[in-house]
Amino acid sequence: MKIYAAYGGPPIIKGLVRDIRPVWALEEIGAPYELAWLNTSESEQKSESYLAINPFGKVPSMEDGDVTLFESGAICFYIANKHAALGGPSGSALWDKAVQWSFAALDTVMPPLFDHFIWTKFRGDNPASPAVVEGALEVANLRFDTLNTVLSDREFLTGGEFTIGDIMMGAAFRYVAEADIIGDRPNLVAYLDRLYARPAFKTAYEINLAGPNASAA
Amino acid sequence: MKIYAAYGGPPIIKGLVRDIRPVWALEEIGAPYELAWLNTSESEQKSESYLAINPFGKVPSMEDGDVTLFESGAICFYIANKHAALGGPSGSALWDKAVQWSFAALDTVMPPLFDHFIWTKFRGDNPASPAVVEGALEVANLRFDTLNTVLSDREFLTGGEFTIGDIMMGAAFRYVAEADIIGDRPNLVAYLDRLYARPAFKTAYEINLAGPNASAA
Repeated sequence: MKIYAAYGGPPIIKGLVRDIRPVWALEEIGAPYELAWLNTSESEQKSESYLAINPFGKVPSMEDGDVTLFESGAICFYIANKHAALGGPSGSALWDKAVQWSFAALDTVMPPLFDHFIWTKFRGDNPASPAVVEGALEVANLRFDTLNTVLSDREFLTGGEFTIGDIMMGAAFRYVAEADIIGDRPNLVAYLDRLYARPAFKTAYEINLAGPNASAA
Repeated sequence: MKIYAAYGGPPIIKGLVRDIRPVWALEEIGAPYELAWLNTSESEQKSESYLAINPFGKVPSMEDGDVTLFESGAICFYIANKHAALGGPSGSALWDKAVQWSFAALDTVMPPLFDHFIWTKFRGDNPASPAVVEGALEVANLRFDTLNTVLSDREFLTGGEFTIGDIMMGAAFRYVAEADIIGDRPNLVAYLDRLYARPAFKTAYEINLAGPNASAA
């Protein structure tokens, strides 16, 4: 399996590029894979050959034999199903919950965290920033409260088993990892600590930071 | 199967509540279902009994026998898999592509469309609005271009077959349905026209507009 990953962006997004999600999943499983690096500072993700794989010109994308896929969520689902791991294969009650939490991470929790990152970092000096950050924090605090409650009786989002839902949630929280906005929510903080202590996360994160030099590490 | 849906919000969100997605899917299939309506003006979505189903207090949620799920994406995947329709069951090459386009709709295309809606409607008079709308339009135009190109050789996102990916994409574009920002992209415009002409969409849309009075229609 080949994962297309990106490097060459501004330093501030190192560790945040979305190819971290399938790489984390593959490292958890111990499945073989190779990385195909695209240099975004030379717009390699907009080349004709890459747009044939992902017409949006984003990463990650995946090739596995005849199968090509884009969107990190779709790729992670494919990996979990293929390897019958991380909540997979599809079709079980655990799978349904892993899918549910993946969507919750991407579509309910991540938007305010991503907005917070964009409008405190990338666009921090824009006149619009204070109002946008304020709105993002308001929603983020609701999400933090919910997750802190949910995580009061379980180790991972679906219960005792680490799934793709946890990968998606862990990746979402990287956008505020340095922002110190989670506050006094001990269950949520302990959960994120558990995620980021996993060797597979650490490897994926290092790869994300290092780019194509990672293989020489 | 029971779908939890919401009514009682501000008029501007009528037709946009996310329960339209699973209802559209079920209407496409012709599968039986019932709606459980939550009055958001009385915070029924924040009741203890509903939070036990969806701790975020959002709609939609689903009950099907012993299975409960939240997140519209997860519910639509469950429906498509259960009924072996709309790209399902899971595990096929078509399914992988339907999943891919569902994520593309929710996580690549919808964010700028949702931002445009929020900052021209809900928060249109906020001082931050012009900068946010400008940024949203910039990304939206990139997404429109990509979709217009992709749709030059196919009727639906995965090819000739209507799938959950089309439901997710169609629902995403409702946020800009009245904004007239798609411009001269004939393939994209024709695609959206095809989606919204489907009887199942029309029924789901009418239900979304009418709320609990829909059953008396």
